[in-house]
Amino acid sequence: MQLPTQVTIHEVCPRDGFQPEQAWIPTATKIEIIDALSQTGVTEIQATSFVHPRAIPQLRDAEDVLAGIAKQPGISYDALVPNPRGAERAAATDIDVWHLMLSASEAHNRENGNRAIAETLAGFPAVVELAAEHGAEVHGGLAVAFGCPYEGEVPLEQLAWVVGEYVALGIEHVSLGDTTGMANPAQIYETMMRLQERFPGIGWTLHLHDTRGMALANVVAGLQAGIDHYDSATGGLGGCPYAPGATGNVATEDLVHMLHLMGIETGVDLDAVIAIARRLQAVVGHPLESRILKAGKTSDLAEIAAA
Amino acid sequence: MQLPTQVTIHEVCPRDGFQPEQAWIPTATKIEIIDALSQTGVTEIQATSFVHPRAIPQLRDAEDVLAGIAKQPGISYDALVPNPRGAERAAATDIDVWHLMLSASEAHNRENGNRAIAETLAGFPAVVELAAEHGAEVHGGLAVAFGCPYEGEVPLEQLAWVVGEYVALGIEHVSLGDTTGMANPAQIYETMMRLQERFPGIGWTLHLHDTRGMALANVVAGLQAGIDHYDSATGGLGGCPYAPGATGNVATEDLVHMLHLMGIETGVDLDAVIAIARRLQAVVGHPLESRILKAGKTSDLAEIAAA
Repeated sequence: MQLPTQVTIHEVCPRDGFQPEQAWIPTATKIEIIDALSQTGVTEIQATSFVHPRAIPQLRDAEDVLAGIAKQPGISYDALVPNPRGAERAAATDIDVWHLMLSASEAHNRENGNRAIAETLAGFPAVVELAAEHGAEVHGGLAVAFGCPYEGEVPLEQLAWVVGEYVALGIEHVSLGDTTGMANPAQIYETMMRLQERFPGIGWTLHLHDTRGMALANVVAGLQAGIDHYDSATGGLGGCPYAPGATGNVATEDLVHMLHLMGIETGVDLDAVIAIARRLQAVVGHPLESRILKAGKTSDLAEIAAA
Repeated sequence: MQLPTQVTIHEVCPRDGFQPEQAWIPTATKIEIIDALSQTGVTEIQATSFVHPRAIPQLRDAEDVLAGIAKQPGISYDALVPNPRGAERAAATDIDVWHLMLSASEAHNRENGNRAIAETLAGFPAVVELAAEHGAEVHGGLAVAFGCPYEGEVPLEQLAWVVGEYVALGIEHVSLGDTTGMANPAQIYETMMRLQERFPGIGWTLHLHDTRGMALANVVAGLQAGIDHYDSATGGLGGCPYAPGATGNVATEDLVHMLHLMGIETGVDLDAVIAIARRLQAVVGHPLESRILKAGKTSDLAEIAAA
């Protein structure tokens, strides 16, 4: 197996993890969690979203969160910027990276943003220009890149088309989301090999949900395709709206635990992440799907047995 | 990625899945479940164990279960045979395969069987001879092959020693268990490549617990090492005694779902397995950890959304 020696974790709990929580998470708590995550060794944190407050009420305090956090040197903080209105809000903050968002399927883009992919794309040149004026980097995010809950399979040609539109905008880092956990390892490997060949010089992140238990298996396939950037959410927060009880984002602690066992460095302090996951369980008031939170680390097991 | 085109599933729910259940599962229910599993297309079923009834009271009805099931042609039924006393019991039944069991670590073997590995091994030649007299095949099972909860790491030399002892007994199929979910994909790949090189002609099965969410990731690594036999338990039954709330065996429906998406044939009817998992949830009276039971198949999602 050919594996990268180092992987970068992009922590998305404060955005994708908090987003579906029904009970209000106080702004001060959000700030506390982001500041704690900033002490774990992660170098990329998705802090919030400039989506319309009516669409995602939980993240309506984006500006207050960003004003309140203690930004640390060496960490890149990003926020979701779904449209020109969101870009105006982002421009009034000091967020480092604007994370654009688009669906790879027409049906999901319409469901999420009430417009065709081409319409969403039409708004992006102005957003990219505004980001440049404010010295912010722009990354391109793609939802349902490996399968759409409405359309089923997303053909590679369709995926390559939307990636190409991002690349044409001058974007150099693209994040591909398995938003509802439909991807399988063979598909991840094949898709990433082909996209890398087709778009040389682009940086790639995989955003893998664990809905059907395949997230870590998909990471193994991604690693073999040479992908060394992965999204994850501490505590595994971020459920799937289509499947109540189903798990959401792959948990940062589950991902880091596996990568470290595989001899792959992340720079992340696993114990610090587990401590935040425990705190998050109290914050959201329901059990989390994190495996390491339930079972403990592999190394704990030997310690417990030896005690 | 180099992948086998076909994988054999060895269904272990009736043994490893039922074993830790506290509430008595009636013999008739066990028979009903095994008979239902016999209609799913699986070709190997571990039906019960000839362990001492005091050690595993849940499986004390081994003889009655085997006498009650409707054995189907084309299916190999096996039972755990841990020692010479168990072998005498097995010899009085028509079970096809005797599955010997041993731990790869001294501490776990002592905890499980109250003796040193060498002492357990000393009992096996008589067992192998008895099996031959009764026309039964013998497989060698190894617990904690990829890590021991008492000793931690199990060195490859130690693992190769116990495998070699099985091979010296004339055993041609060895099953390696990640009994408490400590294995990682890099370790699985490396270990299986080395063992196959060292013991040519031996058939291998991987028995992977999902305690830390790595079972399917480990399957992907195993597939790339050319391993095409996997244990799984319908419903994901079989918890980890060291970690309450932690998951057990990888669920047959989760494994088959992933393999089929990857284009790997199993001959197993996924919907039939899911139906049995639902029935099992009622049988054991507690929620199961099966991901597909909670989230549905990838193909369901597209159907639901389209409806």
